[in-house]
Amino acid sequence: MQTPPTDAHWLDAAARLAARGRPLSCPNPAVGCLIVNDGMVVGRGWTAEGGRPHAEAVALAQAGDRAHGATAYVTLEPCAHKSERGPACADLLAGSGLARVVIGVGDPDPRTAGGGIARLKEAGIEAVLLPSRASHDSLAGYLMRAAEGRPFVTLKVALSLDGCIAAADGESQWITGEEARAHVHSRRAKQDAILVGGGTWRADRPRLDVRLPGLEGRTLRRVVLTRGVPLEGATIINRPAQIAGLEGVQYLYVEGGAQTAASFLAEDLVDRLEIYRAPIVIGGGRPSIGDIAIGSLADAHGRWEETEHRRLGSDQFTAYRRTR
Amino acid sequence: MQTPPTDAHWLDAAARLAARGRPLSCPNPAVGCLIVNDGMVVGRGWTAEGGRPHAEAVALAQAGDRAHGATAYVTLEPCAHKSERGPACADLLAGSGLARVVIGVGDPDPRTAGGGIARLKEAGIEAVLLPSRASHDSLAGYLMRAAEGRPFVTLKVALSLDGCIAAADGESQWITGEEARAHVHSRRAKQDAILVGGGTWRADRPRLDVRLPGLEGRTLRRVVLTRGVPLEGATIINRPAQIAGLEGVQYLYVEGGAQTAASFLAEDLVDRLEIYRAPIVIGGGRPSIGDIAIGSLADAHGRWEETEHRRLGSDQFTAYRRTR
Repeated sequence: MQTPPTDAHWLDAAARLAARGRPLSCPNPAVGCLIVNDGMVVGRGWTAEGGRPHAEAVALAQAGDRAHGATAYVTLEPCAHKSERGPACADLLAGSGLARVVIGVGDPDPRTAGGGIARLKEAGIEAVLLPSRASHDSLAGYLMRAAEGRPFVTLKVALSLDGCIAAADGESQWITGEEARAHVHSRRAKQDAILVGGGTWRADRPRLDVRLPGLEGRTLRRVVLTRGVPLEGATIINRPAQIAGLEGVQYLYVEGGAQTAASFLAEDLVDRLEIYRAPIVIGGGRPSIGDIAIGSLADAHGRWEETEHRRLGSDQFTAYRRTR
Repeated sequence: MQTPPTDAHWLDAAARLAARGRPLSCPNPAVGCLIVNDGMVVGRGWTAEGGRPHAEAVALAQAGDRAHGATAYVTLEPCAHKSERGPACADLLAGSGLARVVIGVGDPDPRTAGGGIARLKEAGIEAVLLPSRASHDSLAGYLMRAAEGRPFVTLKVALSLDGCIAAADGESQWITGEEARAHVHSRRAKQDAILVGGGTWRADRPRLDVRLPGLEGRTLRRVVLTRGVPLEGATIINRPAQIAGLEGVQYLYVEGGAQTAASFLAEDLVDRLEIYRAPIVIGGGRPSIGDIAIGSLADAHGRWEETEHRRLGSDQFTAYRRTR
């Protein structure tokens, strides 16, 4: 006999639903909601394009009467504030006949911040905050904005076995294969903005678009880190810290080159590292990451934890999260 | 119901047995032999220390009468030449009552070279050569000596995510963690000789020994690639091609540094790459591999195929074979 899923399992599933809302839910956080009655999923929802309807409203509408006595799993604390665009989710849930609501992350928004849970409890619903890594990760951009006032930054690097991003003469197309490049496009599709350095912008004139079937129309905000003059088609920043001022950007994807990567790493502004590694040796090529002023090897340790690894064609993909 | 193992499966198992003989069987090849009667393993053997007894003799002694009508799986064609140290294995097998002998690799030794198979067939035994990657890999050093007159070369590199083997100031202890370093010692234990460059020898004074419980006594021949004067405790070579002259060395482990690695790669004298990668970013550190004179990125592709990947503590280990 199989063990029934735990609350943590259902929250993980809600977090996977939430991922479907990203990035089009912007500026709202991409939330996921699952309603479970007697072990059966009776409602599923995620934040829609533009932020409405919210995940909870979608899941409740789907569940209908089957919400009576059920448990709702929500990645983020339901909002307690009404807006012109719709009712507060806490009120919706409170009036739904639910028995329990399990929440992965408390909402840092001062208009909610515990108010959602309080509203549910007032309505006699058992409301539980069950800290969940998957919920947290699925809200990384929203939570980083709230905590640090800046986007969640992913640094992507494609390199050879010996850590080069180009041959000595600058040739860089291609290090990785088709599967890896398609994966990069799928990652771009999850971002609000892409950033490259001025050198890369001028040398490669990257298109920085999403070249995947069905997503060709996806437009991404382009940002260039440069001390130079304004560029057509891109927002300019002069220092990495200025990413804080990129309005409405929760997820920023930094694509290189080596000096730009080093600038972000040196200021500890990288939250996730995504490395594509091709099975080639270049030897004496251009290094992937410039000086980041580490004091000693001991200082370099303990900062990155492997969270994902897979093969993409003949290349490897590994993701690391910044441990803080 | 389970599918019964195929001939190829049994040969794979014989190749795993063969690995136990390496490197102490030197100068004889490390061979594995498995005798199977009616689906049951009745004898197992691998080449003993110093080369005798041979794998077949050990397996036959274990099987006794149960060899009658059985099939023997041998990674290398049984020897057809008698020596002062014992009878030819082909004769032993021919007189054993076996019904079949399945062989993974033909012996390139001119004293056998097909003679072993012929002897078995003369005795009325069904003798089959079934080309086997696992058998071939388990005999890599012996076959490389026979084909190219040089040892099988493994290049080991321990580096950071950005491909550095040391910080800019030369600090290199430690990049990888304890588990990875213990793994290096287990790999050293499988080699006949270890090679480093003159710079590494002088700078780090590496011990180049096997520091594993039970294997402390294992002595390894040390080789240094240098243009300098003779060194105490090491054989000197001036150019990578001189590894051909290292008598009795079938397996050579090249441990660095960057120039030595580049010298071997530039002359296409690396057969296996073993990379240990720590989850640290150094940034602007010392590159792992010097110039190897690749013409273009296209030339760099298609040379290496990933054959093994695992986590060792927080580090990654990946092995690649040279595709030829």
